[in-house]
Amino acid sequence: MQRQIQVYNSLTRQKEVFTPLHEGFIGMYVCGPTVYSDVHLGNCRTFVSFDVIYRYLQFIGYKVRYVRNITDVGHLLDDGEDRMSKGAKQNNLEPMEVAQKYTVGFHDMMRIFNTLPPNIEPRATGHIIEQIEMVQAILNNGYAYIANGSVYFDTLKFAEKTGEYGRLSGRVIDELLAESRDNLKNQDEKRHPSDFAIWMKASEEHLMKWNSPWSVGFPGWHLECSAMSTKYLGEHFDIHGGGNDLKFPHHENEIAQNMGSCGCQPATYWLHTNMLLMNGKKMSKSDGNTISPVELFTGDSPHVTKGYSPMVVRFFFLQSHYRSTNDLTDEALQAAEKGFKRLMEAGKILTSTVIDTAGEGPLDKDILEAMEGAFADMDDDFNTPRALSRLFELVPIINSIKDQKISKDQISKTAWDTLQEKWFHLLFDVFGLMEDTASAANGPVDGLMQLIIELRQQARDNKDWPTSDKIRDTLQELEIVIKDGKEETSWTFK
Amino acid sequence: MQRQIQVYNSLTRQKEVFTPLHEGFIGMYVCGPTVYSDVHLGNCRTFVSFDVIYRYLQFIGYKVRYVRNITDVGHLLDDGEDRMSKGAKQNNLEPMEVAQKYTVGFHDMMRIFNTLPPNIEPRATGHIIEQIEMVQAILNNGYAYIANGSVYFDTLKFAEKTGEYGRLSGRVIDELLAESRDNLKNQDEKRHPSDFAIWMKASEEHLMKWNSPWSVGFPGWHLECSAMSTKYLGEHFDIHGGGNDLKFPHHENEIAQNMGSCGCQPATYWLHTNMLLMNGKKMSKSDGNTISPVELFTGDSPHVTKGYSPMVVRFFFLQSHYRSTNDLTDEALQAAEKGFKRLMEAGKILTSTVIDTAGEGPLDKDILEAMEGAFADMDDDFNTPRALSRLFELVPIINSIKDQKISKDQISKTAWDTLQEKWFHLLFDVFGLMEDTASAANGPVDGLMQLIIELRQQARDNKDWPTSDKIRDTLQELEIVIKDGKEETSWTFK
Repeated sequence: MQRQIQVYNSLTRQKEVFTPLHEGFIGMYVCGPTVYSDVHLGNCRTFVSFDVIYRYLQFIGYKVRYVRNITDVGHLLDDGEDRMSKGAKQNNLEPMEVAQKYTVGFHDMMRIFNTLPPNIEPRATGHIIEQIEMVQAILNNGYAYIANGSVYFDTLKFAEKTGEYGRLSGRVIDELLAESRDNLKNQDEKRHPSDFAIWMKASEEHLMKWNSPWSVGFPGWHLECSAMSTKYLGEHFDIHGGGNDLKFPHHENEIAQNMGSCGCQPATYWLHTNMLLMNGKKMSKSDGNTISPVELFTGDSPHVTKGYSPMVVRFFFLQSHYRSTNDLTDEALQAAEKGFKRLMEAGKILTSTVIDTAGEGPLDKDILEAMEGAFADMDDDFNTPRALSRLFELVPIINSIKDQKISKDQISKTAWDTLQEKWFHLLFDVFGLMEDTASAANGPVDGLMQLIIELRQQARDNKDWPTSDKIRDTLQELEIVIKDGKEETSWTFK
Repeated sequence: MQRQIQVYNSLTRQKEVFTPLHEGFIGMYVCGPTVYSDVHLGNCRTFVSFDVIYRYLQFIGYKVRYVRNITDVGHLLDDGEDRMSKGAKQNNLEPMEVAQKYTVGFHDMMRIFNTLPPNIEPRATGHIIEQIEMVQAILNNGYAYIANGSVYFDTLKFAEKTGEYGRLSGRVIDELLAESRDNLKNQDEKRHPSDFAIWMKASEEHLMKWNSPWSVGFPGWHLECSAMSTKYLGEHFDIHGGGNDLKFPHHENEIAQNMGSCGCQPATYWLHTNMLLMNGKKMSKSDGNTISPVELFTGDSPHVTKGYSPMVVRFFFLQSHYRSTNDLTDEALQAAEKGFKRLMEAGKILTSTVIDTAGEGPLDKDILEAMEGAFADMDDDFNTPRALSRLFELVPIINSIKDQKISKDQISKTAWDTLQEKWFHLLFDVFGLMEDTASAANGPVDGLMQLIIELRQQARDNKDWPTSDKIRDTLQELEIVIKDGKEETSWTFK
């Protein structure tokens, strides 16, 4: 029997007790990246959020089948061009070369952020047959029509018959019908502006296309998720996740397609992550208010004063609840770096300190309650910031044990050992944090550099120029730069 | 204009001057892994070999499209069971979960061996439509027949009409026809024992199946490579590679399928890697004469006395020509480790030593000839062991420059700089070797420690005890130990 958890369901707009369809098992589908460019930092936040949810569900004992797709066809831009084809043309590559390049890059980034790979990672181009079969089923059920070789989903008919269209996004069909026809491709083929293509006839020059009963063409973007979630998780599964921006039209249309083909809502619970902001505003390339993951790690951006390690960024993400916006600022990252280090240091004290107190200690209750509270926070719609704050409450106690400000007989062996075990479960297994590889590798480097910075200062104070020159020359060879700040001296690699 | 290279073509059984179909461009297809278990060390050798070929072709200026597939359906075992389905049943997983697990593991291992990802990595399940279309084309051309919902390639008819079947593997059709029918599944459906399924009707309980004009079923294993190489490289492309064990029946059948559908040989040049042996014998799980990559890295195997780093293993692979067997023994690995370090050390001397000699030096000619010879060796069917031996010839000269046994005026600046540049091109860009990660992480540590050892000596000489105490204390905290030897002072981690 698993712990009882509650999740906020976007479909019902309320927190609900989570009840899986099959006891002990969870099917979870999360919309993955469109691999036509480097993954955005905002997407990384979404995937990290679902990684923590996946980890926690497994941690509390569920067998989870986590499916996250790769969109490598059909995701059209506003100008009606396929994102993959556009990427291919720009780089003078075959679309699948573009897909491969950015899939490899995406996997690299996910590994850098220490996210677990999903259990199945289906590709849209790998499921054309399944998508064609779903189009056929929707046609057979009367919720789609053919126009000039393309097939469109009939939203008005679907809304009238089921009353369902717009439920997830909160848009009403009248509003959708009233929407301008501007910027709609093939507008003449559609019966209503809110209708959407589930199969598109391809033009001569279109690169990615397949035979179908209607035309040589390609599936509409929304279709792949309906077809692949059904194939790998069944017509009805537990959790469907994605970024908030996918609610409409992508997820709304997914629901319409699933209901239109098999008559049932695909997922019991819809979970959506909120936006990553920067300096209080939406990230946007055109405004320059943007930063890539790599720029964030290296510090090579006007928006940050230095680089932050992937684990610090992951920690920063977790400091906001997945349903809240998360505002990335240099100050917040500096604070996250300090906080992350503080927790990691406390973890080291937990590992290296042995407490032998038999029986009970007067602090046991506080410690165990705080720790249990952190797990209760996770049960409550995966509230990572609140769980983290419980850990921070424990840090002064842990530090006081080290500094001997609290005597070891205040805590029992049992409580201390339990604290240690749960601390690492939560931090490493559930939050997916780990020692910074850079700091692990540079661990001794930083220590040695602190020593060298001191010896350099000493040499300067003593006007011992040969020594300070020697230090300068050696660091130059090693491509290490010392920065003398107002308050402190720091170092970085060139 | 690229350098002229020669490759040994398995199809013609001779070395041939390499002429690409389109000047400056190369299409290369290599058979990838079947992702139903961890990748074997022997496969790693094959993929490292083709990685070096891919790197070299790019290095000499070709734009290469390197396609390596992932087999995730249809690869049948001797007992007629699909490898993926068997893996899925054994692990109680959906076949695509098995595919994902071992695809991730395969990619991890390829990264550990520092192989470059291919440009396109198509999956068999992702190309069912293309395979069905190819079956249809073969049927249309009269080279296949339908039996009970399955489709078989008619080898006898193909051999009679084209005279081609058996050319690659050197088997003659009479021999194939005479082969026993034992162990042949659906033998009653086949007209000749050498015929092979290109589409298999699936049983009720079969897990991976798709609709087709003939039955709900799945493609034969050989078909995927024909379909995917054609899709991404065209009906005729430059290089097809794979392990020797794939020559028959896999590659023979691929050729038959390609010729049977479009009438032309798929590849101009067929390249095959030879076997990785262990202690002189074929690796075999049942004999216990086997070692996994991970066991080799950790040393956790009775066959090795210690672990060897991935770069040492890669170097060991390159010490044999890809067309020769490669005999893995503990002694050979120890020798490879020494050889690898020797080359890496020589590289460091090349980087850190500046030679200013103007004009020409008496050693220039020898140096440049050896280096040019190494590239000529690579032009000659990618002869990595001979190219490596040229580098080893240069090591004594490089070491003698360091030890000042050879005066710097024996070599001109131009020759030295050229040597340095080409050395790193060959070792890093072409051979894909890199500093062992463990030693790389300590790179700056060693430099800093040399500085600290000097400053410590200086403090001692000056009887500056506070400074030397501070150094001692800091190093103790960092778990670094300084050893004062007779001749020099060294350091290690505790």
